[in-house]
Amino acid sequence: MNVITERIKTRSEDSCGISDITGLVVDKLSKTGMKHGNVTIFVEGATGGVTTLEHEPGLLKDLPELFEKLIPSDKDYHHDKTWGDGNGFSHLRSALIGPSVSIPFIDGTLTLGTWQQIIVLNFDNRPRSRQVLLQFIGE
Amino acid sequence: MNVITERIKTRSEDSCGISDITGLVVDKLSKTGMKHGNVTIFVEGATGGVTTLEHEPGLLKDLPELFEKLIPSDKDYHHDKTWGDGNGFSHLRSALIGPSVSIPFIDGTLTLGTWQQIIVLNFDNRPRSRQVLLQFIGE
Amino acid sequence: MNVITERIKTRSEDSCGISDITGLVVDKLSKTGMKHGNVTIFVEGATGGVTTLEHEPGLLKDLPELFEKLIPSDKDYHHDKTWGDGNGFSHLRSALIGPSVSIPFIDGTLTLGTWQQIIVLNFDNRPRSRQVLLQFIGE
Repeated sequence: MNVITERIKTRSEDSCGISDITGLVVDKLSKTGMKHGNVTIFVEGATGGVTTLEHEPGLLKDLPELFEKLIPSDKDYHHDKTWGDGNGFSHLRSALIGPSVSIPFIDGTLTLGTWQQIIVLNFDNRPRSRQVLLQFIGE
Repeated sequence: MNVITERIKTRSEDSCGISDITGLVVDKLSKTGMKHGNVTIFVEGATGGVTTLEHEPGLLKDLPELFEKLIPSDKDYHHDKTWGDGNGFSHLRSALIGPSVSIPFIDGTLTLGTWQQIIVLNFDNRPRSRQVLLQFIGE
Repeated sequence: MNVITERIKTRSEDSCGISDITGLVVDKLSKTGMKHGNVTIFVEGATGGVTTLEHEPGLLKDLPELFEKLIPSDKDYHHDKTWGDGNGFSHLRSALIGPSVSIPFIDGTLTLGTWQQIIVLNFDNRPRSRQVLLQFIGE
């Protein structure tokens, strides 16, 4: 058993930016040489999130629309009075989606479904880079 | 430290099907012989999910009703225009709940609360089997 | 590679209580002596949850208000007919947020963002203590 941690960056230009990092995770996994274990994907920062999604153009519109409905960006939040940065909605979306997922791999292959991609979300109200940890534990 | 991965199947007949897999996880854990570690439960596929819930008849109605309210199945989604399979709502519910949970065990016993069961959700709009990974890491 | 599990307690006086456990996790991590690995945080019980949030006064109002909007506490739920304890909303909020997060650490330091704290949620409709597992895996 071994543990290897990699840091990658995602970049998104708009609020509710969705980055497909599946290819990057597959690539880093192959470089670890591990065959059996899991990868924990953790998004640093209080306005990001990670989950899985079929990364196709329709859902890339549907998911931001869903967040606008559940946690509107144009509502007043108490948070905005604290800092004046207007991103209360970003923090709430982030808390709801959560910062981590863990995905097993077998024979060096992630156990994702065919249409299931790993996406990192940037909910912040400005373009920004985001640090993402990929931690592989296995053998 | 060791890693053991098992694949199980759940089957659900309706959309928002809820399968209690607690007994299966307990059974597989006892067969690993591990005493101390955790199990990662990961649902393969872009229209499933996993979380914990008290598996009792009232909540088995409440949870589907909640999803109908938050992400209605009879709304038009952009995804449905891409593939015409009408399950845009399934993908969004899946992204919201997430594909993985991790549960520690001590002395060979899962640290679940008394009323806390592990449930796998099938959000797809048709009956289907679903692959679920159980990955035990420990000693 | 080693595994060390700690149990801590949080206490909250009201429904939608939010406990910042970051300091406790940092403290327990330093006592393990581990440098490289991850901690799985798991909340025992069917009416709790864990995620990350900037723990500041504005968001401590915003998050409970969000839950009131998405899953109101004054609505009738089927669960309440089963047990008569009136906390159907608590169970649903718990299922939505989920019971676990996993956070990598490097050189003995959690990889949290500057404004990102680990919060345990008590959604139950009464003051209560809550058991939380911290499981460190690493070396």
